Amino acid sequence: MLIVQKFGGTSVGDLERIANVAKRVAKTKKEGNAVVVVVSAMSGETNKLVGYAEHFSKNPARAEMDMLLSSGERVTASLLSIALQEMGVDATAMSGRKAGILTDNIHTKARIQEIDPTAMHNLVKEGKVVVVAGFQGVNEEGDITTLGRGGSDLSAVAIAGALEADLCEIYTDVTGIYTTDPRIEPKAKKLEKISYDEMLEFASLGAKVLQNRSVEMAKKLNVNLVTRSSFSDEEGTLITKEENIMEKPLVSGIALDRNQARVSLCGVKDRPGIASDIFNTLADADVNVDMIIQTKSVDESTNIDFTVPVGELIDAKVVVDVFVKKGEIKSDSYNEDICKVSVVGVGMKSHAGVAAKAFSVMAKENINIHMISTSEIKISMVIDEKYAELAVRSLHDAYELEK
Amino acid sequence: MLIVQKFGGTSVGDLERIANVAKRVAKTKKEGNAVVVVVSAMSGETNKLVGYAEHFSKNPARAEMDMLLSSGERVTASLLSIALQEMGVDATAMSGRKAGILTDNIHTKARIQEIDPTAMHNLVKEGKVVVVAGFQGVNEEGDITTLGRGGSDLSAVAIAGALEADLCEIYTDVTGIYTTDPRIEPKAKKLEKISYDEMLEFASLGAKVLQNRSVEMAKKLNVNLVTRSSFSDEEGTLITKEENIMEKPLVSGIALDRNQARVSLCGVKDRPGIASDIFNTLADADVNVDMIIQTKSVDESTNIDFTVPVGELIDAKVVVDVFVKKGEIKSDSYNEDICKVSVVGVGMKSHAGVAAKAFSVMAKENINIHMISTSEIKISMVIDEKYAELAVRSLHDAYELEK
Repeated sequence: MLIVQKFGGTSVGDLERIANVAKRVAKTKKEGNAVVVVVSAMSGETNKLVGYAEHFSKNPARAEMDMLLSSGERVTASLLSIALQEMGVDATAMSGRKAGILTDNIHTKARIQEIDPTAMHNLVKEGKVVVVAGFQGVNEEGDITTLGRGGSDLSAVAIAGALEADLCEIYTDVTGIYTTDPRIEPKAKKLEKISYDEMLEFASLGAKVLQNRSVEMAKKLNVNLVTRSSFSDEEGTLITKEENIMEKPLVSGIALDRNQARVSLCGVKDRPGIASDIFNTLADADVNVDMIIQTKSVDESTNIDFTVPVGELIDAKVVVDVFVKKGEIKSDSYNEDICKVSVVGVGMKSHAGVAAKAFSVMAKENINIHMISTSEIKISMVIDEKYAELAVRSLHDAYELEK
Repeated sequence: MLIVQKFGGTSVGDLERIANVAKRVAKTKKEGNAVVVVVSAMSGETNKLVGYAEHFSKNPARAEMDMLLSSGERVTASLLSIALQEMGVDATAMSGRKAGILTDNIHTKARIQEIDPTAMHNLVKEGKVVVVAGFQGVNEEGDITTLGRGGSDLSAVAIAGALEADLCEIYTDVTGIYTTDPRIEPKAKKLEKISYDEMLEFASLGAKVLQNRSVEMAKKLNVNLVTRSSFSDEEGTLITKEENIMEKPLVSGIALDRNQARVSLCGVKDRPGIASDIFNTLADADVNVDMIIQTKSVDESTNIDFTVPVGELIDAKVVVDVFVKKGEIKSDSYNEDICKVSVVGVGMKSHAGVAAKAFSVMAKENINIHMISTSEIKISMVIDEKYAELAVRSLHDAYELEK
């Protein structure tokens, strides 16, 4: 098998951990696999460098930031390669440039345009373990770019796609994807397999293991993704095509997002395009609106409710204020003490009654549902935050996820 | 003027110092000059990275070391560029690659083959300050290489040559080249100008401000080099063509090298090629032999005396032992308690009596001279180490260098 293994900052956090990573890579190689490794900067390094830059400027130039930050991954790649060589594994370190990662020109948030895997491919064919500095590429002018948050995961997935690897293992400090947060529900079970779409829902619902960008790319490139822990030998969770999952469970897991706030607008002026105006202005202010509900009251006035991440609430207020002052909104109110509980599962597509069960669980527990939104494979409910754990545990129970 | 300014590790040792360097660069630019800056890694960074690598391997692969170590200079270049931008100076950071520095393939000790200054040239023409990561280049395959000890100085001199800069300023923590070590002779004076050849003698005699490689390259490329301190505004010392120095002093300075040991071989077998055998074997063992004296005793047996750096004495002994065991050397003795005092000056070329004066000064002070070697512009004398300071001060006095 050709396996791409990606190790995040915590997994390469100090020299001892890099040595452990080397052992794991050596073992994978020894078992007869071809291995390409993608590494992050040692944990803390990137923050240190950002701190240095911020000492000089609140808004440092992005091209300079890319040159600055990309150095961290190069250090880890070199060290891991040296560690592997010392263990007798034929390894070679590569920058993003050498690995053939071409990006667009958006410094600090570049997108991978293309990967020329020739160099990696040739070395792999020679039997070498290739260790690539993640998070970075070069633009057409040959300037270093970085891929933004979660960039090393993206590097790994894109490389796995370009090399047509059999597997792309993402090593972090958690062992995989669980039916729900085990800190809330100790009976939570690790999932053996999960579809891309389910993972996308989990990721956008606050699961921190993988970012949406990486899962989307894995789906697009048809990369079999595994999240597992670099600190244990436990099997992880395979994220793959829905077709590859034989026994599709009705519900895969329960996600909880506490990081939501609710904005309620009462008495919204009844003119064409008012909703579009409000939400476009919010988008221009970089406010990510999630759930939206529009209702008409008995007095024929319109109310609009929506949720935003807590951190963007202040920006949302600024936007809303403008409409209030123009007299297009009668009153506004805000509530940070809410959370979003979601039931995710591909099985929902073909089974009715999944949503009904969720609602009846909430009813049985006397939990009031403020907002509901559904997709083909997800039901999200906004409830008071104080009920968060109770809701998660009750749903976990109701769908028998501990089995 | 187009000025290349190079700042060493101590000069960019922390964020405050980088801010000071930025001020100096900004001032130079404001005075109407075009400026290209070359920086080293922050002091301590390179040693830290070497320590990391040595944690894994006593003999880490050199390509990996180059990728590892080159990151330090990139960090400094990015940070300095950010600091300059914040001060309103239009600056841009560059890796060695972007600066067009092409080297041979000898990782960790690469030699600059060629510089394509187009990128730097264009940016300088646009009025930008270009900040280049020193110490590094790329080989023909595009792999990162580093230039070995003193590499950032080399980068600066080579860039100054390629850009035909008017001046290449090397900033360190010392203010320039002195007639002798001021810690030994407080009356020592800073030299305003000195020729390349004199500087080469000083450098090979242990002056730590500049390495021979950099001075040689400056001479070859006809680069006007200035060594000065980044911690004061004091003028430094200009190192330039002999023709540019109008008033050639008889003697420019007195150099002292304590780092020498003497090897004495008695009763060397009288066969053709024996000396060549001994010194070739020493060269193969990486022992740098400096002064050599061969004498015949009254009994017709040959004695050979030579000096080596103290650190290479053990290796020299190993080589000598082989010849002793073969019976080709009767006896060997070693003396670490010696030093080499040298009188350097281009004026010697045209003036007789400089050497004679040195010998008479030694005689007057009752200092026994063990070995003598001379070049066109230098007289070196090996004496007992205990007389080192006395010899330096007496010579400094005799040639009236305090004037």
